[in-house]
Amino acid sequence: MSVEGLSINLATVSRQFGFAAAVDACLAQGVTAIAPWRDQVEAIGLGEAARIVKANGLRVTGYCRGGMFPAADKTGLAAAIGDNKRAIDEAAALGADCLVMVVGGLAEKSKDIAAARAMVADGLAAVLPYARACKVPLAIEPLHPMYAADRACVNTLEQALDLCDALGAGVGVAIDVYHTWWDPKIRPQIARAGRKRQILAHHICDWLTPTRDLLLDRGMMGDGVIDLKQFRADIEKAGFHGPQEVEIFSSENWWKRPGEEVIATCIERYRTVC
Amino acid sequence: MSVEGLSINLATVSRQFGFAAAVDACLAQGVTAIAPWRDQVEAIGLGEAARIVKANGLRVTGYCRGGMFPAADKTGLAAAIGDNKRAIDEAAALGADCLVMVVGGLAEKSKDIAAARAMVADGLAAVLPYARACKVPLAIEPLHPMYAADRACVNTLEQALDLCDALGAGVGVAIDVYHTWWDPKIRPQIARAGRKRQILAHHICDWLTPTRDLLLDRGMMGDGVIDLKQFRADIEKAGFHGPQEVEIFSSENWWKRPGEEVIATCIERYRTVC
Repeated sequence: MSVEGLSINLATVSRQFGFAAAVDACLAQGVTAIAPWRDQVEAIGLGEAARIVKANGLRVTGYCRGGMFPAADKTGLAAAIGDNKRAIDEAAALGADCLVMVVGGLAEKSKDIAAARAMVADGLAAVLPYARACKVPLAIEPLHPMYAADRACVNTLEQALDLCDALGAGVGVAIDVYHTWWDPKIRPQIARAGRKRQILAHHICDWLTPTRDLLLDRGMMGDGVIDLKQFRADIEKAGFHGPQEVEIFSSENWWKRPGEEVIATCIERYRTVC
Repeated sequence: MSVEGLSINLATVSRQFGFAAAVDACLAQGVTAIAPWRDQVEAIGLGEAARIVKANGLRVTGYCRGGMFPAADKTGLAAAIGDNKRAIDEAAALGADCLVMVVGGLAEKSKDIAAARAMVADGLAAVLPYARACKVPLAIEPLHPMYAADRACVNTLEQALDLCDALGAGVGVAIDVYHTWWDPKIRPQIARAGRKRQILAHHICDWLTPTRDLLLDRGMMGDGVIDLKQFRADIEKAGFHGPQEVEIFSSENWWKRPGEEVIATCIERYRTVC
């Protein structure tokens, strides 16, 4: 039985499975959409990963990840741009719906977040022509403000959409409920994104109370406080009907359970609370 | 020697000192502005706390805290309103510049953040006439989005100022660099707050990278990534020249050190990096 509309971001089972085993485990339960990470693809080889995707008719709802632009100097920024072009090549080889852009935080030893944001805009502008040529949409993912220093200085959907508007065609957003659920402007900004067809991905998990770790304590859908049905309704109303992609980093809970159980739980929660 | 322009929020030394000892330690190093918490005042008694404030000519830059409005039912909201009126009485007795409002997160078992925000607006409107009569300004403190579920569903300065504008006279904002440094709109919103004289308090500390605990790992000024001098310049440009109030919750570092050392470090950092 196929599970329509659900994608598993392979980070969710990254401690249990490599790329091939993760795909097998997804297919065994009817999940035919995935989102892999670069390290997972590198471990098996890009050619083999692309072969597995094609042979099984998998949808790749996103490739994780490009970005990480802010650098201490021009050499660093140039290196980041080069690395992003390689990520675009890989995303193209996998036929991914988009390359997810986690744009990067402050440059090393810097306290200048405005400068980091300017480097992000410059970096995105530098890789965008290449992405367009490769037909790989770039999905800017606004991350929760608690990651502004070390992971992404794009922290609201409004900010991401302003950046998209400035950059033009070929760039949109990945909306992750974990990063954006708190935002008082999230609903009108989702509607705004819909009007320009800028929604490229919809990531789900849940916000636990209390949250015990800033990075590795994401919750399974239904275990936290996010109104996932409302989010889905808003995103579908905005015109995005792609799969909901489960992305859970959970060092003390889900990463310690059998991968099959994690996937089964994702499916069950997807059907009941999302 | 007096330390002009610096206030110590007594949470910063709450594990070392009660109210009276904290005041003595501040005065010994020339600090004449403080911000106490309700539990600290209750422990010594409101009358005695007010006597100490008056006898020493202390400035009370804020009283912590009112708020926590969202409740499961009307009885709960009514109780919160009653408790806020008592907090207003106490703030008046202490001659505090403002009552800091940490507005509260989701109601118990609720996933409806819009409803929580509506209850906050209703709760503030319900206590505001009393606050005005007592001449106690209410300072809405937008908290970092990582506290949206359990502490405060007002999470950006823009949102807080929209609320202030709707409520009218007698309410403003407490701007804490820890909660707001990441916000791409912080600088224009500080300027906006200045135009209506809505800035009532300026709290400082620093954002550590990595941050090891969502609540109790705030950094001493200079140990993190926040551009404190820029913040101060923006806030002063907006017309607020009150003391900068140090508020550090630090279970593994500053709360374990001698209180005198903590205060001395606050003074040194205030003079060098703020």
